Amino acid sequence: MTYTLILSHPDTTSFNHSLTEQIVLALEDEGHQVRVHDLYTEHFQPVLENEEIRRRFSFDELFTRHIRDLREAAGIILVYPDWWGMPPAILKGWLDRIFRPGIAFDHRGEEFMPKEKIPLLTGKKALVISTTNETNPLTQDGMYEIWRNRVFDYVGVDRVTFKTFYGIRESSARDRRQWLKEVVDLTLHWI
Amino acid sequence: MTYTLILSHPDTTSFNHSLTEQIVLALEDEGHQVRVHDLYTEHFQPVLENEEIRRRFSFDELFTRHIRDLREAAGIILVYPDWWGMPPAILKGWLDRIFRPGIAFDHRGEEFMPKEKIPLLTGKKALVISTTNETNPLTQDGMYEIWRNRVFDYVGVDRVTFKTFYGIRESSARDRRQWLKEVVDLTLHWI
Repeated sequence: MTYTLILSHPDTTSFNHSLTEQIVLALEDEGHQVRVHDLYTEHFQPVLENEEIRRRFSFDELFTRHIRDLREAAGIILVYPDWWGMPPAILKGWLDRIFRPGIAFDHRGEEFMPKEKIPLLTGKKALVISTTNETNPLTQDGMYEIWRNRVFDYVGVDRVTFKTFYGIRESSARDRRQWLKEVVDLTLHWI
Repeated sequence: MTYTLILSHPDTTSFNHSLTEQIVLALEDEGHQVRVHDLYTEHFQPVLENEEIRRRFSFDELFTRHIRDLREAAGIILVYPDWWGMPPAILKGWLDRIFRPGIAFDHRGEEFMPKEKIPLLTGKKALVISTTNETNPLTQDGMYEIWRNRVFDYVGVDRVTFKTFYGIRESSARDRRQWLKEVVDLTLHWI
């Protein structure tokens, strides 16, 4: 199987990068292929401009690769730090630009009439991994609800698995070693 | 009083722009000053880079104006379209880059010890106005919770007023005229 992994942390020495490395190794060990998109390294441009909305397409080669990888993936993996209860702007913009009509969903119906929405990512599953300095699990409720009901449900992805690693700033090296093992188990259980 | 208004819609003919115009006129009629930041027109760069995190500062002149306007404002007004349950990436990035340590909050305490967080925007209030094609008010719950508990509470802003205009795509010109009146009343009630 092929998976697409979207990593959104600005520091290449981050724990988000370590988590990504473990996920990739785990999947490759099982014979799967993972296409990793490190949005910061790719200099992904997150601003959806008006002309791209009207044209319904970008000619950007990176954009085209993202769409191909999303289409071919059995599963979508997101790895990001919680910033203000949400993903960083670069990941929000990945959603804005890649989850577009004709790619993630479509509208069908007669002209001038209310349209029926058709999800286009049905059959895929999602794994959403975040890190936070907060220690209270309640802090994630709003975002889990949005990922589940406003994002993935809309495009037909109904199997969404969440994992948040809490208290990153205060964590010990031992905590983090343990979490890297946990993320491998989680990934193998998710596929 | 001075207010800062952050507008985040890519289409300059949008209903978000009409709402902004009405809010500005209402406040100016009452003798207030409004500093409007149309993030798309400003070409606001929403990606928080690692070197900006470490430096804790941007030398960008636009960034400096945003900070000054935020500091001097009695209230913060956000106007945006709901995209995937969240603000557009450009507004998420405004938060990522402007709500930084030393500006929106700070940490105090001894070296190597857990720090106490100090909110720096206490005394200000917020007005969050969004538009959506959804018609079900439940769709906003996740984001209201995040704005309130993860964003504004953290920086000391406890008076947050929300207003969402629903069913934009299917709305009539008459609906929208009515909503433009409503936003004026709401603004005058909020100040």
